[in-house]
Amino acid sequence: MKADHNKNLESLKELIDSKDLIPNISVDCTIFGFHDNILKVLLLKYHDMDLYSLPGGFVFIDEDLREAADRVLYERTHLKGLFLEQFHTFGRLDRTKNNVHKTLINNKGLDVPSDHWILQRFITVGYCSLIDFSMANTFPDAFNESCAWFEVNKLPQMAFDHDRVIAEGLKYLRKNIDTQVAASNLLPEKFTMKDLQSLYETILGEKFRRNNFQRKILSTNSLERMEKLFDGSANKAPYLYKFIKK
Amino acid sequence: MKADHNKNLESLKELIDSKDLIPNISVDCTIFGFHDNILKVLLLKYHDMDLYSLPGGFVFIDEDLREAADRVLYERTHLKGLFLEQFHTFGRLDRTKNNVHKTLINNKGLDVPSDHWILQRFITVGYCSLIDFSMANTFPDAFNESCAWFEVNKLPQMAFDHDRVIAEGLKYLRKNIDTQVAASNLLPEKFTMKDLQSLYETILGEKFRRNNFQRKILSTNSLERMEKLFDGSANKAPYLYKFIKK
Repeated sequence: MKADHNKNLESLKELIDSKDLIPNISVDCTIFGFHDNILKVLLLKYHDMDLYSLPGGFVFIDEDLREAADRVLYERTHLKGLFLEQFHTFGRLDRTKNNVHKTLINNKGLDVPSDHWILQRFITVGYCSLIDFSMANTFPDAFNESCAWFEVNKLPQMAFDHDRVIAEGLKYLRKNIDTQVAASNLLPEKFTMKDLQSLYETILGEKFRRNNFQRKILSTNSLERMEKLFDGSANKAPYLYKFIKK
Repeated sequence: MKADHNKNLESLKELIDSKDLIPNISVDCTIFGFHDNILKVLLLKYHDMDLYSLPGGFVFIDEDLREAADRVLYERTHLKGLFLEQFHTFGRLDRTKNNVHKTLINNKGLDVPSDHWILQRFITVGYCSLIDFSMANTFPDAFNESCAWFEVNKLPQMAFDHDRVIAEGLKYLRKNIDTQVAASNLLPEKFTMKDLQSLYETILGEKFRRNNFQRKILSTNSLERMEKLFDGSANKAPYLYKFIKK
């Protein structure tokens, strides 16, 4: 634990002393995880505080904004090549008034000039992804002691405006559910209408009538009907579907 | 003209010397204008260069990001309270490699340290609005000599990645056409289906069959049918519609 503490302190110092970051801008990722009909979101817990945040980070001066989001996500989950979409940039003046960085830096006993950008206002660019949370490991960063999945409607105390970022991310996920689900690899290559409906119901937080759901989803022309799923009771065997690659 | 030149030089100096702006972040507005079945976008021409840009600006340290977008738009058009929506943040490393600020500052003979943020990379937040371009006056800023409307498919040489910003803004406008049109005040309170179809066709850049358009637009449940528009030939009088306020 001592070794970990020193390592974290070193990373934090490195971050503060870095001349390679764009000041006042960050990226934050709302990584939604679906498994066993529960929708969760990946959060980090700060050191020595009962306070959580989204996996986020800063943008290097020689890095695309999008690369920064991919990198942050990789650093927290070790996942690469995810379907990660930008959904909104949060720039309210008061979004960082709850100044977590200041508290953290004080807690660590670090001496940082009060005009350092890390203690100032941030504008953050939000990215969204949907993955199978049982597949992902999580890795905390310099500011954080743990990284874990929380049900979207049972969030702990969030830092900054991250509760709003999650709400907006969820709105984006729901609005773009067709694209997000098709890109998420949450379903096997071939799946039943029932599996798909159950996924949609969990993400949208509402129930559908089977016929309505089937008609609506087929009208999007994004599914191809395959063979039946034979399970012995042939009469009632459901059809399998797969996503049409676009 | 001399007085104008000095005034512009003063504004530019003031901008460069300002300690009240967040470095490396800007806002850019794609203001689409519709009139007489033509879709245009508002552009500014730089001083002494055959080069154009979107109306944009920087964010004050004590200003909401959204307020900055409203302010920039007000400064360029003197319009207030427009339906202005954020659509994407552009952060590619190479988006500012065509360094217009540097050329402009050199042209003006100003001496600016090479590490000044105005000469560096910018991340820009794009906002989109749809207005009646015949209603708006345009007012150039310190960097620019004129401000005018261009047809979206006949753009002049654009600075930075602003051609991409316009393309993404147009994509956003088309994807959100129902909301944008309803909020735009482009139509009178009561309008015919033909007027609405013509507006949709111009924005989407495609023609529709009358019956298909009517069926599709009515299925959104955003219109209320009113009385007929009596013009003498009562048999063929079309119905008037209005948007349902949400």
